[in-house]
Amino acid sequence: MSAHPPSVLGFEAGATACGLKKHESLDLCVITSDRPCTAAAVFTQNRIKGEPVKLDRKHLRHSWHRAIVVNSKYSNVCTGRQGFADARAMAEQVGAALGCKPETVFVASTGIIGARMPMDKVQRGIDQALEVRQPGGWGAAAEAIMTTDTRPKLVTRAFSLGKKRAHLLGIAKGSGMIEPHMGTMLAFFVTDVAVEKRYLQKILRRVADQTFNRVTIDGDTSTSDSVIVLANGAAGNRPLKEGTPLGKVFESNLLMGCATLAREIARDGEGARHLITIQADGAQNERDAERLARSVANSPLVKTAIYGQDANVGRLAMAAGKAGVAFAQEQLQISVNGHCVMRGGFFVPFDEPALTQTLAAEETEIHIRIGDGPGKATIWTCDLTEDYIHINADYRS
Amino acid sequence: MSAHPPSVLGFEAGATACGLKKHESLDLCVITSDRPCTAAAVFTQNRIKGEPVKLDRKHLRHSWHRAIVVNSKYSNVCTGRQGFADARAMAEQVGAALGCKPETVFVASTGIIGARMPMDKVQRGIDQALEVRQPGGWGAAAEAIMTTDTRPKLVTRAFSLGKKRAHLLGIAKGSGMIEPHMGTMLAFFVTDVAVEKRYLQKILRRVADQTFNRVTIDGDTSTSDSVIVLANGAAGNRPLKEGTPLGKVFESNLLMGCATLAREIARDGEGARHLITIQADGAQNERDAERLARSVANSPLVKTAIYGQDANVGRLAMAAGKAGVAFAQEQLQISVNGHCVMRGGFFVPFDEPALTQTLAAEETEIHIRIGDGPGKATIWTCDLTEDYIHINADYRS
Repeated sequence: MSAHPPSVLGFEAGATACGLKKHESLDLCVITSDRPCTAAAVFTQNRIKGEPVKLDRKHLRHSWHRAIVVNSKYSNVCTGRQGFADARAMAEQVGAALGCKPETVFVASTGIIGARMPMDKVQRGIDQALEVRQPGGWGAAAEAIMTTDTRPKLVTRAFSLGKKRAHLLGIAKGSGMIEPHMGTMLAFFVTDVAVEKRYLQKILRRVADQTFNRVTIDGDTSTSDSVIVLANGAAGNRPLKEGTPLGKVFESNLLMGCATLAREIARDGEGARHLITIQADGAQNERDAERLARSVANSPLVKTAIYGQDANVGRLAMAAGKAGVAFAQEQLQISVNGHCVMRGGFFVPFDEPALTQTLAAEETEIHIRIGDGPGKATIWTCDLTEDYIHINADYRS
Repeated sequence: MSAHPPSVLGFEAGATACGLKKHESLDLCVITSDRPCTAAAVFTQNRIKGEPVKLDRKHLRHSWHRAIVVNSKYSNVCTGRQGFADARAMAEQVGAALGCKPETVFVASTGIIGARMPMDKVQRGIDQALEVRQPGGWGAAAEAIMTTDTRPKLVTRAFSLGKKRAHLLGIAKGSGMIEPHMGTMLAFFVTDVAVEKRYLQKILRRVADQTFNRVTIDGDTSTSDSVIVLANGAAGNRPLKEGTPLGKVFESNLLMGCATLAREIARDGEGARHLITIQADGAQNERDAERLARSVANSPLVKTAIYGQDANVGRLAMAAGKAGVAFAQEQLQISVNGHCVMRGGFFVPFDEPALTQTLAAEETEIHIRIGDGPGKATIWTCDLTEDYIHINADYRS
């Protein structure tokens, strides 16, 4: 850790290894504010939801919040009343330590589903994490929420809000697994900006739709996905409201913070070698553009081609065509890393060695134009490699 | 080939190695009838369609047909006017040999997209295939349409139609590739039954929706998928019409023939080790059931788990929950190879060693019940293995 780790006024983070993971790895963290925060949160759209998600949806109705507690290794999903009571107990414990009601605390869990958490370890972990928390504890917290992520993901932004100096810090974990269960996307942001609660929720919904909801690793959706923002107002600004210029400044900073973490999650997808950005435009509307980009992003044939460093025009055209979006083949135009490979629906000659060389780099950009409409969208994904198969199939062998 | 290869009265098939594939492999075939047939056909829903598909859609408007000509190695997709003219030339050549208009001939091509076919080889191949055609030539024809399929796929059925004896024969190729381009599903059926043309088209649409459209290897959709039926009436029955008992007999035989080939296509998916059958029921309607089963079938986490011989309850629940179909978690029930693993939305104890042993077999059945509704559907797929990645990524390395 550097001499000046990132921090946001009024917030602390603490992480501990309480024995959920093996090898004394960090596996539990708390995020606390020294004063009440407005909060916003968005959760998985999966019909099966983890018990912490069910709890948090209730807690979100409270008018202010103070903390988030997160553990990895166990996701507390499909665990029934006992699981819900366990999640609630985690909130109670953190709330009691801060002198607050449990409703002021959010809970998130990621890892194995169906198994009850060892609550004795969790309770000791919460005590330890609360004890070691500090303003610069974010690197450790980012590590504690990892499952099969290969690196912690942290973003910070500092910006001016009128005459005030404001800060935003976020940590995230991506589509990784602890043992062969599902991957989960978690992201937690803290900011010293004061934001009116309903407005914050509105902003987060918009921003998440543009960022975290535009990441796809394998088309699967976890039962525990959660993005939570705490805004404690320590910057001293008047609470931001809808339709104000300062509100827009904050929103664009949150957007950029979320986009950074979303890209990092795609880059660190299981077994990934390439971060792939798919841009679709010329569609009749944004929804069509998103659907088209997602169809290309989720195509195993496209993903394996990029892995194989093959600018496979045919697969790209196929994946665009199967999206269920109406367009004329004669309008289809495709570029890969700036090289146009299809125009008017037909292959065009391109410098294949030069293009293939660009595919050796870690980032690939695919641009697909299907007409002259205003609709456009970006989706981030990664390639599909043998390592994805190994991670997800081989744990027993 | 056995002493009595399967045949259908009035039909012949001929296959040849005309140099499209390497190593003198069979790569072109013709299917002909000695008398006019009624025909029906269904084609890919991809917005990008191969030139043969565009041609066939026109030819289908003709009232009767005599032949199908098929080549592998080149798919004739994204090849523009020249490609369309090439497809047309294939139909003209076969038609001329039979003394018929080109409109009476269907054309199908599967393989590399974007490259023009070497028409001199194709033309020589057509002549050769016409010359060697014979009533029992179906095994060779099934081989000639293969790309990365590991085995030819052929089905025959004999059944009574009133007092007449009737026959149905089908060949198919699955999701394989010639070089790293897209896989294509092709199936061709011939029958000696007489069927009224509009009725035949109606039957085929219904049957294909229940069979070929219920197979998913990787969620990708080829630009060349085609299923064509020729019915020449040599059995001597009165032409079958809608709403008749004999019509139902024929439809159920066509359904079983298509289901057999659909399962064979899933079983022989690229790199597959398991044929996976997903049955969903208890949904409000068939559409919801299909969507749910498809969501599970297309989940890479489910597919890798089956490959790893892991009865991963959590992934199955996740994949059901993300389908976009409304259901109550408390109603979710999941069985794998007859072992119930989830009931009322929660894990239930099961004999894990016994269940794991069933996963060593080549076929896996997953049954998901989400309520008490009448909607049910079956989807066939295969597991996701390193070999899928190798086949689709490694051709350059």
